[in-house]
Amino acid sequence: VDSWFEEKSYHKQLALRVKIKSVLHEEQSQWQKIEVLDTHALGKLLLLDGKTMVSQVDEFIYHEIMGHIPNMILPHAKKVLIIGGGDCGIVREMVKHPNLEQIDLVEIDERVVEVAKKYFPECTSGMSDPRVNLKCIDGVKFIENQKNQYDIVIIDSTDPEGFAEGLFSAEFYQKVYDSLTDEGIMMNQTENPILDEFGIEKIYHHMRSVFPIVDAFTAPMIIYPGVYWTFGFSSKKYKAAQLHPDKESWLAEQNLNLKWYNSDWHRGANKLPNLVKSKLGI
Amino acid sequence: VDSWFEEKSYHKQLALRVKIKSVLHEEQSQWQKIEVLDTHALGKLLLLDGKTMVSQVDEFIYHEIMGHIPNMILPHAKKVLIIGGGDCGIVREMVKHPNLEQIDLVEIDERVVEVAKKYFPECTSGMSDPRVNLKCIDGVKFIENQKNQYDIVIIDSTDPEGFAEGLFSAEFYQKVYDSLTDEGIMMNQTENPILDEFGIEKIYHHMRSVFPIVDAFTAPMIIYPGVYWTFGFSSKKYKAAQLHPDKESWLAEQNLNLKWYNSDWHRGANKLPNLVKSKLGI
Repeated sequence: VDSWFEEKSYHKQLALRVKIKSVLHEEQSQWQKIEVLDTHALGKLLLLDGKTMVSQVDEFIYHEIMGHIPNMILPHAKKVLIIGGGDCGIVREMVKHPNLEQIDLVEIDERVVEVAKKYFPECTSGMSDPRVNLKCIDGVKFIENQKNQYDIVIIDSTDPEGFAEGLFSAEFYQKVYDSLTDEGIMMNQTENPILDEFGIEKIYHHMRSVFPIVDAFTAPMIIYPGVYWTFGFSSKKYKAAQLHPDKESWLAEQNLNLKWYNSDWHRGANKLPNLVKSKLGI
Repeated sequence: VDSWFEEKSYHKQLALRVKIKSVLHEEQSQWQKIEVLDTHALGKLLLLDGKTMVSQVDEFIYHEIMGHIPNMILPHAKKVLIIGGGDCGIVREMVKHPNLEQIDLVEIDERVVEVAKKYFPECTSGMSDPRVNLKCIDGVKFIENQKNQYDIVIIDSTDPEGFAEGLFSAEFYQKVYDSLTDEGIMMNQTENPILDEFGIEKIYHHMRSVFPIVDAFTAPMIIYPGVYWTFGFSSKKYKAAQLHPDKESWLAEQNLNLKWYNSDWHRGANKLPNLVKSKLGI
């Protein structure tokens, strides 16, 4: 008989199902259940507590967006903090930027990083870069002691429930703000605006209560419930589509083999449809 | 026990499931099975031969895109032809443009229009406009006799299989080209580029073999398999993002209550990510 994985969402009234070739890994870590499935349609699939996190077929979309947008605005950024993101996909994109001197990945669950290294080596390839530091501690506690340290902070979190709920509060955004330098940028995953299971309006209200500039980008995430994803952009000085001309010329000269990101797309994906503008208050 | 509707896709290895409140309608027309489900997550859902066509929760995205993009480029467009589109959602958006004098809806299956009028009255509200003509005949045969007639032709088709396959051929695109005036624009649904079940490269190759200007827009369709949708733009004279300034001022003065479309989004959604550019050859 066929074996299928199913993730129910939107108050358990909608589900994405995918046919399983085989279960490659299954463990209960100190923090959560970690599973790796091999599937026909999506390649390898990483699950945390039964929720889809990363698929081989579309992981580059999320990771390139988070990795390149802030760096294209801040050509002199030196220090990056990534909270969550144990699959290491954002690190892979960050190390492509020679301006960066230090990339701190703060992932509470060391086992997620180990499992990613084994089953998603294409995601973890940046971890051998000498600028990368892995810290397996609680990101919320870590950031409390950081003041005026980071040019870029990325919040690569799960949904706003359980232990990730605190990563969507105004108090947490204030800590991120304090950890950033004067031109600092925070980017975070901010859920989907059409089915809107978690109250996107409130998330952006919290971001706006702390940052002077708050905006968003959108892109598809075919493995996530709701499938149309918003990426929050909170900034102290520069606007979301304010790419630096030096960085644009640099990108044009490189051959980074990006599958999603280009600078025209960057500007275009910041032009939001009416539904998103009104929900986000932009 | 709970009752669920499921649509399998991508070679039957992926599925979208939605919980059903009730089955509102079920019939076998001369052409296809027509069903209307009431669902918790997506509101009312129209199925043709078991495939999702329209949901109340996201129908406005598709219909506003098809209805407004060509009209914002051609402020003096007078005649529109819509092939397929029996739910009448595109007609609802077209009638908002006072420049249009004639809107022909050519839907082969009269029963789809009747079912839409009963269960999706918010989609069919434009059908009482005196400029609208419903012709329940085969669109491919109809267009053969039209030469230099229409400013805008919209192909609102099902997937390229069965009786809709012909709507994706170079021969058909040539007939659309011949039916268009010198500044004419064709828009068509061109499937999803990530899972790419039907060979999107070939579709755009066919469009380019006929039209001098071929481009695309992208938007989410949360009820369609693959969920990230491309909307083809083929044109004799004007480019995809070449909005007419008079029409932009007109739109800014109106209160059309659009839920998705705005002119900034129009330009932005035409800035394609690398994956889409390379697959479409743009």
